Amino acid sequence: MKLEMICTGEEVLSGQIIDTNAAWVANTMMELGIEMQHRITVGDRLDDLVQAFIDRSHHADVIIINGGLGPTSDDMSAEAMALAKGEPLVENVEWREKLIEWFSRNNRVMAKSNLKQAWLPESAVMIDNPVGTACGFRVKLNKAWLFFTPGVPFELKHMITEQFIPFIKAEFKASENTALKKLLTIGHGESSLADSLADLTLPDGVTLGYRSSMPHIEIKIFARGDEAIRQLSSVTQEVKAILGTAVVADDKPTLAAEIHQRLYQSGFSLSVAESCTGGLVTSQLIDFAGSSSYLHHGLVTYSNESKVKVLGVNPQVLDDHGAVSIQTVEAMAKGAREILDSDYALSTSGIAGPDGGSGEKPVGTVAIALATKNAVYSQMIKVSSRSRSLVRSLSAAVAYDMLRRALLDEAIIVDYPSIKRFDK
Amino acid sequence: MKLEMICTGEEVLSGQIIDTNAAWVANTMMELGIEMQHRITVGDRLDDLVQAFIDRSHHADVIIINGGLGPTSDDMSAEAMALAKGEPLVENVEWREKLIEWFSRNNRVMAKSNLKQAWLPESAVMIDNPVGTACGFRVKLNKAWLFFTPGVPFELKHMITEQFIPFIKAEFKASENTALKKLLTIGHGESSLADSLADLTLPDGVTLGYRSSMPHIEIKIFARGDEAIRQLSSVTQEVKAILGTAVVADDKPTLAAEIHQRLYQSGFSLSVAESCTGGLVTSQLIDFAGSSSYLHHGLVTYSNESKVKVLGVNPQVLDDHGAVSIQTVEAMAKGAREILDSDYALSTSGIAGPDGGSGEKPVGTVAIALATKNAVYSQMIKVSSRSRSLVRSLSAAVAYDMLRRALLDEAIIVDYPSIKRFDK
Repeated sequence: MKLEMICTGEEVLSGQIIDTNAAWVANTMMELGIEMQHRITVGDRLDDLVQAFIDRSHHADVIIINGGLGPTSDDMSAEAMALAKGEPLVENVEWREKLIEWFSRNNRVMAKSNLKQAWLPESAVMIDNPVGTACGFRVKLNKAWLFFTPGVPFELKHMITEQFIPFIKAEFKASENTALKKLLTIGHGESSLADSLADLTLPDGVTLGYRSSMPHIEIKIFARGDEAIRQLSSVTQEVKAILGTAVVADDKPTLAAEIHQRLYQSGFSLSVAESCTGGLVTSQLIDFAGSSSYLHHGLVTYSNESKVKVLGVNPQVLDDHGAVSIQTVEAMAKGAREILDSDYALSTSGIAGPDGGSGEKPVGTVAIALATKNAVYSQMIKVSSRSRSLVRSLSAAVAYDMLRRALLDEAIIVDYPSIKRFDK
Repeated sequence: MKLEMICTGEEVLSGQIIDTNAAWVANTMMELGIEMQHRITVGDRLDDLVQAFIDRSHHADVIIINGGLGPTSDDMSAEAMALAKGEPLVENVEWREKLIEWFSRNNRVMAKSNLKQAWLPESAVMIDNPVGTACGFRVKLNKAWLFFTPGVPFELKHMITEQFIPFIKAEFKASENTALKKLLTIGHGESSLADSLADLTLPDGVTLGYRSSMPHIEIKIFARGDEAIRQLSSVTQEVKAILGTAVVADDKPTLAAEIHQRLYQSGFSLSVAESCTGGLVTSQLIDFAGSSSYLHHGLVTYSNESKVKVLGVNPQVLDDHGAVSIQTVEAMAKGAREILDSDYALSTSGIAGPDGGSGEKPVGTVAIALATKNAVYSQMIKVSSRSRSLVRSLSAAVAYDMLRRALLDEAIIVDYPSIKRFDK
């Protein structure tokens, strides 16, 4: 099956939006063993859309078209498809009713322009969108099925998962079984990961891929065919043995997701005191529904005065050792934990840059502590100072990993590849 | 001048890398008034490359090709171009010497494969790359100049800025001046914005565009030509007059950027106490270097106990009115402000969902307060409950806007389109 994609919209073509939809779709299909073969990005020009639909319908079996289903005049995917096919637009009564019902249910006044979203090419099969006002549709042209999806990422993902994947599974019988194992790593660059795994002999049908999503790199171990699938688990064990502490989670998109699941299931409570990470440790957990069951509070004590007044850090500690020190983060973690007697507390303090570094403590120096009911563990690391956001996200990842290791009763302070650790 | 782009590389097509190069190039050219018209993304398949080069050379005046200039076997841009043009590859002696010199200067051993990077199509004009080992080149095919650039973002940016832009300026005299004004809005959907502005008569050469970046929608007012540019300011005033409170910033990508700049320049200090927004108000500000000069702390008091112990909220207030109430957020803002006697404090408490709603306070109900040294302002709003992250980001936006209006000495509590406000 030859899969292609056509992304529409001036804002995507002109770079005002970075096209994460395209990457998400290609990635998602890859996990089903279907490679994206070609992608065109066109603006909101009717001629360009029509030409792209006709041209690619001679090459592809299936084309996912993304965007251009909205109510405004620059949304012209349906009109372009009707022109490409040489047929009129016809109002889809079912979707018209749904639109009216949707606006009434949400207590919103429907603009006239919204009714445009019910007009589809005559031969189109309408595709339900239970999470938005733009229905999808599909049309057969030449050898290809053109499958139209909304540009809103949330609606696109819903439609691909619930409608597109079942459609292509039914239309083009999936030939071979595939399986995928994902390992989340920290500390390695992509090329050093590839170098570390270069000597690994992979069974036929097993391939490795890497996806960089800083501060993580995800390793994908892909197995195609029953024999390869049988060997997936032993290959995974070999990869883990080679990479050691760099592997921090199995089949989780982020360390925050790993921590959320463990805390949510265990019933342990957490408090967080952040300085340089600026709320990142807290907010990544709060992104998950249910986090209120274990998260007591996240105190972003950015100023020294706040560390003293909110967390009870002794001002003498700040004077003697500075805000970025083992002593300060240990006092921060203890203070945050004691306020509500939480089971665990994490704290961070560091120099995210671009300013504020010194010879002794350059930009990228970060102190991190974990307090439990019985002890405090801490370390001071130096991460690549390439960007403020990377210093913060990698520091948050190391903090999460300390907690993860504590929850697993493993050693809490360990060496990671490429992350330098200062002695106390 | 018709500009197009062809992006190459399996990792870009398959979504393992999000294509930030494409967005950067399009944005950079747009700022010169040159629109990107079309973009193709192809993998490392020779046939696809050759076909794309030939096809698009009939449409475009200039095509930027990105990637495929490296030393490995999957780098095949030069080979594909030679095939498309029907001419041989020829070693460029100048670049061969540069390669040898580059490796010697960097004390690195040159792999034989690196010499491949000096082989260019016979008619190519070599383009210097002073920051890498892949030279660029350009070739004329049919009506188009195809301009080949390296995939490494740093090298690409250097070549576009130093070589490509001077080339097109010389080759295609810049014809018309352009100017762009951006207005940031909250509260309107894209279609209701378009409806509100439908009756506005735009002068020739002035166009409106919309970019959705929830919880904001940005309106772009684009003027092409000197006469249109002269009218840009009056059109902007008309748009603002029609939209009223929905316009919250000029030429800023987010409200956080607006608040950061105002606080950074004014010297006023801020404390934040967050519940449902979970650190978002704080972390969006901390993303900006320099925020430590005004941000005292951001206290994510997720549990009721934390609101009492950290912020000093009276437990009776929580008992009588609940965590999501005007009384509670007012006490939170006062408490957060008083700890360090900040000039301002913002607080939020709400029901982000998907659970926790009730008949009286459904999911999407959020109370927000702003404390100053003299007074406390508060409101309780109901935002669309479509997603947890939208409830949080829109609540943060309304909180920022209260502070923005306070800094401008404007009314602090106002009605926004589509955001329902409860009476106290």
